[in-house]
Amino acid sequence: MGRAERSNSEIRVVLVGVGAIGREIARLLLKKRGVKIVGAVDSAPNKIGMDLGEAIGLKEKLGVTICGSISELNVRGDVAIHATTSFLEKAYPQIIELVERGFNVISTCEELSYPYIVSEELSKKIDKLAKKHNVAVLGTGINPGFLMDTLVITLTAACQEIKRIIVERVIDAAKRRLPFQLKIGAGLSPDEFREKIFRYEITGHVGLKQSIAIIADALNIKLDGIYEEPIEPIITEKEVKSAFVTVKPGFVSGLSQKAHGILDGEPFITLIFRAQIGAQKEYDSIFIDGEPQINERIEPCIHGDAGTAAIIVNSIPRVLCMKPGLKTMKDMQIPSAIMGEMRKPCKNRDA
Amino acid sequence: MGRAERSNSEIRVVLVGVGAIGREIARLLLKKRGVKIVGAVDSAPNKIGMDLGEAIGLKEKLGVTICGSISELNVRGDVAIHATTSFLEKAYPQIIELVERGFNVISTCEELSYPYIVSEELSKKIDKLAKKHNVAVLGTGINPGFLMDTLVITLTAACQEIKRIIVERVIDAAKRRLPFQLKIGAGLSPDEFREKIFRYEITGHVGLKQSIAIIADALNIKLDGIYEEPIEPIITEKEVKSAFVTVKPGFVSGLSQKAHGILDGEPFITLIFRAQIGAQKEYDSIFIDGEPQINERIEPCIHGDAGTAAIIVNSIPRVLCMKPGLKTMKDMQIPSAIMGEMRKPCKNRDA
Repeated sequence: MGRAERSNSEIRVVLVGVGAIGREIARLLLKKRGVKIVGAVDSAPNKIGMDLGEAIGLKEKLGVTICGSISELNVRGDVAIHATTSFLEKAYPQIIELVERGFNVISTCEELSYPYIVSEELSKKIDKLAKKHNVAVLGTGINPGFLMDTLVITLTAACQEIKRIIVERVIDAAKRRLPFQLKIGAGLSPDEFREKIFRYEITGHVGLKQSIAIIADALNIKLDGIYEEPIEPIITEKEVKSAFVTVKPGFVSGLSQKAHGILDGEPFITLIFRAQIGAQKEYDSIFIDGEPQINERIEPCIHGDAGTAAIIVNSIPRVLCMKPGLKTMKDMQIPSAIMGEMRKPCKNRDA
Repeated sequence: MGRAERSNSEIRVVLVGVGAIGREIARLLLKKRGVKIVGAVDSAPNKIGMDLGEAIGLKEKLGVTICGSISELNVRGDVAIHATTSFLEKAYPQIIELVERGFNVISTCEELSYPYIVSEELSKKIDKLAKKHNVAVLGTGINPGFLMDTLVITLTAACQEIKRIIVERVIDAAKRRLPFQLKIGAGLSPDEFREKIFRYEITGHVGLKQSIAIIADALNIKLDGIYEEPIEPIITEKEVKSAFVTVKPGFVSGLSQKAHGILDGEPFITLIFRAQIGAQKEYDSIFIDGEPQINERIEPCIHGDAGTAAIIVNSIPRVLCMKPGLKTMKDMQIPSAIMGEMRKPCKNRDA
């Protein structure tokens, strides 16, 4: 659907991926005014043919039947919310298909939040195709997309100069859903953990590199490179437990990840991500050693799923106003919640 | 100077107002690459004819002579940094003159950060003239402009819904310059304080209303109104002192201000500003009661003068890329520090 057709009517959204995050996004969309879910896609055999309302745990049907692939979507719309994978390579053919069908795309795909460092080639192809179809493509979410990048970039605006940036996200995994707890290796022995890392069965948080690259890009500096330390298990000394998992002393309660943006041979940006069952404190902190120095902290940390759904949905009007092409959060107008009607006049959009 | 002429060369800046903030901005501009100060204006008789370098306390001259009025400026440039007043009415004729001379304008004028609530008429005139001359006009600074509005707006992006916003800025005035300490009434008796309030000799922090209005605008809600409580003196119980002022028990160590954005008859946004000599803790906090809840804190608070200079200078490339007209921070691309060369390719600018 062309951009010119989008005045006055509701924003029409299709949902590609009805997993845990897709569900949370769908529920949020249903609460918003000025926006309507007109289609849904999920490849899981048990979801195909189901009504979206049932699939997301509502009592009533929504009149939207989940189809098994994008090619079966028989609706037109303004925006596709894409929530199927963390990896660019897997997301790429889906994004391409959505763009070719005229959808603006907002994706939770972590690598898409700054895809240039994964594949310059695929990034350029997406950008070119999006421009051709007059739509914008954005990868975002709470992290990457907000806490360890957009918010950091925003805070630097108060700095005259910057010597060092250290960002930390510490999560008590006991408060998260089971797949998240398993994803961080909770309950494994140290050996099992290392083996799962080796077999790529534990990938940890995807996006630290993206967050570093987008911060550097916004600050207009050219890093020597980005160095990601090996994922480390956090071994608990005392028994900790969640509703699902009990971790005995000497076993793995979660994981710790660190990545560094190197400038002039020294770490300039350091991101630290820790998620474990029984974390003493949960917080998101940003420290900027600069002039002035900024010591910022959100405590407790922002809940990932709830925050991601918010960022995705709140990005809808912004993305509709962006110039066509592949975009990142740093290109965005200052983000915000949208409390009133979703459809806002596009002050910044291309003519 | 037209926008088309601005490629490749340095950004040419004129400084209108060489007071405490103008000085800090000038010093920062001199450290940045890709930007050059080409003119300066100040109406203070002791500054007219002085070299800018001497006026800002440097040992060397800069070859820029301070002239007494904008009409005497015999240079052309890209951006005028305007730092002469907190009030729209006083700023207005100066802004107009700068726009007519083809300057984009970035101003520290507090009321200009969201001028529509001061004068719809003057705002429209500025907007119209700026469009005619193909330049953008922005009022900003650390506060209003960032801590109690832009940062609040940005944080709401992580929220699915919002019930209440409370923002607090608490400053230890002992760490600030003398004029600031006098501006908040430090050292006065309670009666003297009330008399100075009555005679508008103490105006307190200007901008709480602007910050509330811009938050509401970004969230797309229509407030019933904005209510500003009377400025209150903070009476000290024990003696407190700065390098300049000693405050005896029972006297005024500073002031406290509160303003509320009212929605459906209840305070929805509340801003609290406190500045006093001997404040126990200095911080900038943002509390968003929503889903999820966000509890954010910067401690110590960001220094006002240093932060304002940073925000102003960091806004330069953004403003050069904005569409012409009167702009506010919520229209901006996500702000950031600029560490490399100032001149960036304009990804978002009008064609």
